[in-house]
Amino acid sequence: MSFSPLIGELIDALRVLPGVGPKTAQRMALNLLVRNRLGGKKLAGSLLEAIEHVGYCKECRTLSESELCLLCASSQRDRTQLCVVESPMDVYAIESAGGYRGVYFVLMGHLSPIDGIGPADIGIDRLISRLKAGEVQEVILATNPTVEGEATAHYIAMQVNEMGLTVSRIAHGVPMGGELEFVDGGTLLHAFSGRKPI
Amino acid sequence: MSFSPLIGELIDALRVLPGVGPKTAQRMALNLLVRNRLGGKKLAGSLLEAIEHVGYCKECRTLSESELCLLCASSQRDRTQLCVVESPMDVYAIESAGGYRGVYFVLMGHLSPIDGIGPADIGIDRLISRLKAGEVQEVILATNPTVEGEATAHYIAMQVNEMGLTVSRIAHGVPMGGELEFVDGGTLLHAFSGRKPI
Repeated sequence: MSFSPLIGELIDALRVLPGVGPKTAQRMALNLLVRNRLGGKKLAGSLLEAIEHVGYCKECRTLSESELCLLCASSQRDRTQLCVVESPMDVYAIESAGGYRGVYFVLMGHLSPIDGIGPADIGIDRLISRLKAGEVQEVILATNPTVEGEATAHYIAMQVNEMGLTVSRIAHGVPMGGELEFVDGGTLLHAFSGRKPI
Repeated sequence: MSFSPLIGELIDALRVLPGVGPKTAQRMALNLLVRNRLGGKKLAGSLLEAIEHVGYCKECRTLSESELCLLCASSQRDRTQLCVVESPMDVYAIESAGGYRGVYFVLMGHLSPIDGIGPADIGIDRLISRLKAGEVQEVILATNPTVEGEATAHYIAMQVNEMGLTVSRIAHGVPMGGELEFVDGGTLLHAFSGRKPI
């Protein structure tokens, strides 16, 4: 059936959210209108606020509403270790795992010549000038283990090596807690070729 | 880790959506900010528009931005059949199943003495005065098959019977396309006691 136009528009608009299809969007729209208009109003306000005021950290390029993000501004972080990732989501994933105490550099993408995305588009020039400043001693490459992510890591590694800095790639292999029989072939091969003496 | 305050607020606000927990809310917030700010802005606008302008149909009480909803305003519907449901979601569910050509009355809840919800709170008085107007010939009770929904159906049935109108309850039994072994006991018993000669 056709909804009233405004409800139909709201359902369409909700589909920009990741993982929300037509059925879920309909349930969300009706639920908000019937049960929680106050919450819906608050959501609209928060959306507008965040979209207007959240920019990018001028040092690591992650999402931040202040000039420096909380991590770059913190005095608790080891500024000699720099972890390079593709997106702010990766920063949050690594931070919620805990353990890493260094700082980040967010590429906001990966090299992809087919889409016309070159080194300048992912801020490699800014990364290099930051490394030249001399504070960083080790670069840890944590781009995604995809074709583009690997190519990006390889490209950055070459540049960093030329500068005489330590550069490393995070380990890829069988995930912890998983069962071997469910791991895909590519990952298993990678785990064998990357085996370490114990 | 702690997010920047505005991002944290957005994540909290997204949790008003049904089925959205902390992890999903985080993914939605970051995704919108990194990849689709325009879509986020449009969503905020649609939310505010819908919340401000969508009210309730003065005839059937479903969600509507005009005085009469599309169904009550339609000349294609059979106004002698009136289906009573608990919420606008039920109207959409029945409409998308197709087949029913009558009109609706939405209770916006069910009788629940424990929560202080009596007949007046779910618009029974308005339902009765609508029936007294004489156009409706059959009332179909499609409240939920829960304790409260059954009680509400029973209460309405008594009132309608006194007025000498036909009143029916939708059938409850084994869902179509399901397998008997996965159907719960209550439903199976109901299906047996409600068996029909073929």
